[in-house]
Amino acid sequence: MQRVLDGILGRRLSTREEGHEQVTAVTGVPFLGLDALASASYGPEAALTMLIPLGAIAPLYLLPIIAVISVILAAVAMSYRQTIAAYPGGGGSFTVARENLGPKVGVVAGAALAIDYILNVAIAISAGVGAVVSAIPSLQAHTLTLCLVLLALLTLVNLRGIRQSAAVFAVPTAVFVVSLGLVIVVGVARAIASGGHPTAVVAPPAPKHAVEAVSAWLIIRAFANGTTAMTGVEAVADAVPVFRDPRIRRARRTLVAIVGMLIVLLIGIGYLCRAYDIAATEPGKAGYQSVLSMLTAAVFGHSAFYYVALASVLCILSLSANTSFADFPRVCRLLALEHHLPATFAERGRRLVFTRGIVLLAILSAALLVAFGGITDRLIPLFAIGALLAFTMSQAGMVAHWRRVGGKHARKSTVMNATGATATGITLVIVAISKFTEGAWLVIVVVPLVSLLLWRIRGYNERISEAVATEQPMAREHLASPVAVVVADAWNRGTRRALELALELSDVVYAVQITTDSERPGGLADVWDRMIACRSPDAAGVTPKLVVVSSPYRQFFTPIVELLRDLGSEYPDRNIAVIIPELEIGHWYERLLHNNRGRMLRAYLLANPPDRLVLVTTPYRVAA
Amino acid sequence: MQRVLDGILGRRLSTREEGHEQVTAVTGVPFLGLDALASASYGPEAALTMLIPLGAIAPLYLLPIIAVISVILAAVAMSYRQTIAAYPGGGGSFTVARENLGPKVGVVAGAALAIDYILNVAIAISAGVGAVVSAIPSLQAHTLTLCLVLLALLTLVNLRGIRQSAAVFAVPTAVFVVSLGLVIVVGVARAIASGGHPTAVVAPPAPKHAVEAVSAWLIIRAFANGTTAMTGVEAVADAVPVFRDPRIRRARRTLVAIVGMLIVLLIGIGYLCRAYDIAATEPGKAGYQSVLSMLTAAVFGHSAFYYVALASVLCILSLSANTSFADFPRVCRLLALEHHLPATFAERGRRLVFTRGIVLLAILSAALLVAFGGITDRLIPLFAIGALLAFTMSQAGMVAHWRRVGGKHARKSTVMNATGATATGITLVIVAISKFTEGAWLVIVVVPLVSLLLWRIRGYNERISEAVATEQPMAREHLASPVAVVVADAWNRGTRRALELALELSDVVYAVQITTDSERPGGLADVWDRMIACRSPDAAGVTPKLVVVSSPYRQFFTPIVELLRDLGSEYPDRNIAVIIPELEIGHWYERLLHNNRGRMLRAYLLANPPDRLVLVTTPYRVAA
Repeated sequence: MQRVLDGILGRRLSTREEGHEQVTAVTGVPFLGLDALASASYGPEAALTMLIPLGAIAPLYLLPIIAVISVILAAVAMSYRQTIAAYPGGGGSFTVARENLGPKVGVVAGAALAIDYILNVAIAISAGVGAVVSAIPSLQAHTLTLCLVLLALLTLVNLRGIRQSAAVFAVPTAVFVVSLGLVIVVGVARAIASGGHPTAVVAPPAPKHAVEAVSAWLIIRAFANGTTAMTGVEAVADAVPVFRDPRIRRARRTLVAIVGMLIVLLIGIGYLCRAYDIAATEPGKAGYQSVLSMLTAAVFGHSAFYYVALASVLCILSLSANTSFADFPRVCRLLALEHHLPATFAERGRRLVFTRGIVLLAILSAALLVAFGGITDRLIPLFAIGALLAFTMSQAGMVAHWRRVGGKHARKSTVMNATGATATGITLVIVAISKFTEGAWLVIVVVPLVSLLLWRIRGYNERISEAVATEQPMAREHLASPVAVVVADAWNRGTRRALELALELSDVVYAVQITTDSERPGGLADVWDRMIACRSPDAAGVTPKLVVVSSPYRQFFTPIVELLRDLGSEYPDRNIAVIIPELEIGHWYERLLHNNRGRMLRAYLLANPPDRLVLVTTPYRVAA
Repeated sequence: MQRVLDGILGRRLSTREEGHEQVTAVTGVPFLGLDALASASYGPEAALTMLIPLGAIAPLYLLPIIAVISVILAAVAMSYRQTIAAYPGGGGSFTVARENLGPKVGVVAGAALAIDYILNVAIAISAGVGAVVSAIPSLQAHTLTLCLVLLALLTLVNLRGIRQSAAVFAVPTAVFVVSLGLVIVVGVARAIASGGHPTAVVAPPAPKHAVEAVSAWLIIRAFANGTTAMTGVEAVADAVPVFRDPRIRRARRTLVAIVGMLIVLLIGIGYLCRAYDIAATEPGKAGYQSVLSMLTAAVFGHSAFYYVALASVLCILSLSANTSFADFPRVCRLLALEHHLPATFAERGRRLVFTRGIVLLAILSAALLVAFGGITDRLIPLFAIGALLAFTMSQAGMVAHWRRVGGKHARKSTVMNATGATATGITLVIVAISKFTEGAWLVIVVVPLVSLLLWRIRGYNERISEAVATEQPMAREHLASPVAVVVADAWNRGTRRALELALELSDVVYAVQITTDSERPGGLADVWDRMIACRSPDAAGVTPKLVVVSSPYRQFFTPIVELLRDLGSEYPDRNIAVIIPELEIGHWYERLLHNNRGRMLRAYLLANPPDRLVLVTTPYRVAA
C-alpha cells in the first residue's frame, strides 16, 4: 500500500523540504500567465459562436467586440498593478475584499473565485479536447471520456505536486505564443499584401446562411461571451510572494507583459477572422472545428506546423486548467483559516500540496464536465461571471483601501482602481443580464448560495470551538472506575479476553447475554459456573455477574441500550464501559462471513450514545 | 425511523407468534402448486419460440414434445411421492442428497436449487410483465422498469411476511386454472366440432416464412426449452410439515393433483396451438404476443374474458416468483445451519421471515433482470438445468435411501425413484448439451463454482469456530491495569474527558501530541502545567505524562503506532489502551465539517492493531 502510493504520488515530503520559489519576470509569464494567455484560444471563439446566426457577416463584428474587451483588460491590468503594490504578501480577491469591505463581502469574493476556478478547469479541459477533436474528428464521440482522462491526469500530477512549475510551463507557453504569433504575423502580412483579402491555404467551411439580422442584443451577448478572454489576469496579483526581490517591480512587469501579449493575440485573431472570413462552427456537432484550427489552416494549411500549433493549444489549455489546481486549493486554505471550510483544507498532504482542495476541485469539475457532456460552449455562459465578480470586489476593495490608508500615490491609485472596478462592474452587469437565461442565472444563484454556506460553516465551526473549549483544569479527586459490561453469547476466546480486560478496568463487571432465538442452545449461561465462578474469591475479590436478557422480538441492540440505562441509574457516579471483543479478520472479504455484531453494536451505540458511555474494543487474534 | 419501518414492514413480531400452518390437500394446491402450474404459461411458449424458424409448420411439433415432457413429469411425481413418505419432515433436495449421497453432493444440490430459485424469480416476473406487454403494447419500452417494480413489491411483501399465504394464493390460482381450463375446453370443443380446423375469433399473427427445415437438433432444443414446464414440482416434497395430519396422505394427494392439472393444461395448450395454427412471435421485438394471449384471443376474442385471463396469468406468474421467495431463504437457512453460509441467514428478522435470504434473492434476481433486460426468452436457456440437477440428485439420493433403509415397500419405491432419477437425469443431459451454447454453460459453470464457494465457506467457518473456541476458564490472578494513552492536540472538553477517564482506568497515563504542521501554534504543551500538573499529588498519586512527537512528514497515524509499539515493549505485561474522545455530532452532515481524526485513528488501529491494543472511545456532548 505504502509502496503503491509512493509509486503513484511520489515519496512523502518533509515539511522542511518546502522551498521558496524564485520567479522572475521571464519565468513569471509562463507560470502565472498561462491561464490568461490561454483565454485567447476560447474568448474570441465564444464571441464568434454567438454570432453564428448572422451567417457570413459574423466575422465583421468580432474585431470591435475584441477592441472593447482589450480596453477593459488594460484598465484591469492598471488596477491590479496598484493591488500588487499594496499587497506584496499576495492580494487575492478574498483577502482584499475581506480586509477592506468586511468579511461578508470577502466570502462572496471567495465563493465567486472558487466557482470560477472550477469552471475554468472544466472549460480549459473541454476546450483543449475540442482542439484535438477538431484535428481528429473520429474522436468526437469520445469527447467526454477524453475530458475526464485529462482531468484525472492533471489531478494526479497536482497531487504529486509541481515543484519546478515554472520550468514545466515555459516550453508549451513559448510554443503557443510563438506559433499563434507566427500565424498572426504571417496572416496579417498576407492580408496586407493582398489588400485585405488574402486567399486561405485551406479555406474555412462556408458560413451558414444568416438566420438573424444584426441586433444590439446579439452583439451584447457576443461581447458577454467574449469576456471569458479576461479570466486569469488576477493570478499575478494573487502570487506576488513567489517573485524574487524586488518582487513588486517584477510582478508588475510580469502582469503588463502577460496582458500586453494577450491583447495582441486577441486583436490579431479578431483581424484575421475578418480577413479570412472565418465564422464559428456549431460546437458539439459534426463538422465542428475550433476557430484557431480554421485560422491556422487558412494561413498555413494542414502542414506539420498546423499540428504543432494545435498541439500547443491543447497543451496550454490543459495547463491553464492547472492554474485552477494551483490557486483553488489556496483559496480553500484561506477560507479554512477563517473557519469557512473544515480545517483539513489548510493541511498539507504527503507532497506538501493541499490535497483536500485538489481533490474537491477534481470532483466538482468532473461533475461539471459530466453534466455538460464535455462541450465548452455549453459551459461558457456560466463562465466569467465569477471572475468578473471577484475582480470587481477586489478592485472596489482597493478603492476602500486607498481611502483608508492614504499616502503619496493614493489619489492616482484610487483613480486607477476605481476605473478598473467600474469597467469590470459594468461588464459584470452586462454579462449577467445578457447571459441570464442561458445559464448565468445558475452562477448568480450559486454564488450567493455558496457564500451563505461558507458563512454558515464559519458560524458552525465557531460555535463548536467555543462549546468544546474549556479553561477548567482536570478534576482533582480520584474518580471511581467505570462499570464494565461485556456482551457475549458464548464462551470463546473473545469473551474470555473481554472479561479479563473488564476485571483489569473495574471492580463491577457484568456479562450480558441476549437470547434472541429460542431455537439456539444455551450459550454462555451453560458454562458460566465452570468458566467464571471457579475463579477463587481470594484473587481480587471481584466476580463478574451474568445477566441473561430474553428478547422475544429478536432485537439485539434495544435490550442492551435498556440495560445500559438501568446500570446508569444504578451507578449514577460512574461511567458505563461496554467492552466488545473484536476478532481480527485476515482478509476484508472474510468479514462478509462474520455477523459483525460487535461492529454493529459499536456503531449503534456511537450513533446515539447513552449517558456516560465508554466504548472499549479489544481486538484479538486467533490462528486459523 | 422505528415508525417508518413499522409502517412499511409492519410491527415487529414476537418469536412466540409463530404459528403452524395447517394446509389441506385443497389449500395445498394454490400454496405449493403455484410455481408448477405457472410453468404452463411459459413452458410451451419456450418450446414454440425455439421452433420459429420452421414457420407455419412449427405448431405441428409442439404436441409430441409436450407429450414426452408429460410422461417425464408423471415419473417425477411418482418418484416424489416416495420422497414424501420417506421424509415427512420435509425432503428438500439439499437434505435428501446430503443425507444419502454425502455432504458434497448435498452442497451441489443446494447450489443448483438456489440458482434455480433465483432464475425462477427473474423468469416468472419477466414472463408476467411479458403478458402485460402483450395486452398493452405501449408499455413495451418499459419492460425492465416494470420488472424491477414488480420485484420490489414482491420483496416488500415477503419482508412483511405472508401469514395467510394459502388464502392469498387461492383466488388467482383458481382464476388462472379455471380461465385457462375454459379456453382449453371451449377451444377443444370447437376444434372437434369443426373437424380439427376451427376458425379463430381473433386470428393469430401469420407465422413467419420457414427459414429452416425440420431437424432432430431443432426438436431436441425445443424440448429442452419446454422442460422449463417441469420446474416447481419439488415444492410439495419440500414442505410436507405444513400439512395437517395425516400429512403424508394429504401431501401426496396435493402433489398428484398439481401434476395432473399441469399435464392437462400442457397437453391442452399443445393441441390448441396446432388446431389454431399458433406459432410463437419473437420476444422482445415489436409485435410480440405471448402464446397464451394469442390462444385466448383465438378462442374468445379480445373480450373482457381475455383481459381477465391475461391478468390472471400476470398474477400467477408474479406469485410463482413468490415460491422462490418462500423457499430460497429456507434453503439458505439450511445451508447456514450446516455452516455453508453466514449464521445470520438462519436468523429470523422482525417479521419472523429470514430477512437476509429474501434480500439476497432480491439483489441477485434484480441483477439478472438488469443483465438480460427483462426479456424472458433470454433467460430460458439458463433455466431448468438447476431444477433438473436438483431433481436428479434428490431422486438418486432416494434410491440410496431405500437401499440403506430397506423395508416392506423398498423395492417398489426404489424402482419408482430410479425411474424418476433416470428420466430427469437423461433430460438434464439433453438440456445441458442442447442449450450449452445459448447460455446453459453459464449455469453449468456457475453451479460448481457456487458449490465450491459454499464448501469453502463451510471450511472457513469451521476453522474460525475451532480457533475461537476455548475450554480454558478465566485467568485466576488479578491482572494489571492497562497503560492508558490519550491522543490530543489541544486542551478542550474532549481532552479533559479522556484524561479523566484514563485516570479512572489506569495508574500509568500518557498524553500524546503529534505536531505535524510547523505553522500551527503550540497546542497542549503550552497549557499542560496549568491544566494537569496543578493536580495535587496527594489525590491518587498518578500524574499523566505528556509526550510531544514531532512528525516532519505530517503523518499522524504512523508516529502513534510507533509510540504504542514502544510502550508495548516498555510494559510487556500490560494492555495498551488508546483513549479517543469523540464529540457527538448533531446531524450526520455536520460530520463533514469535522476532521474526524478520532474516527480515522480508530479505523486505522483496528485495521492493523498493535499487540495488546485496547481501543477506548468516549463520546462527549457539548451544547452548541
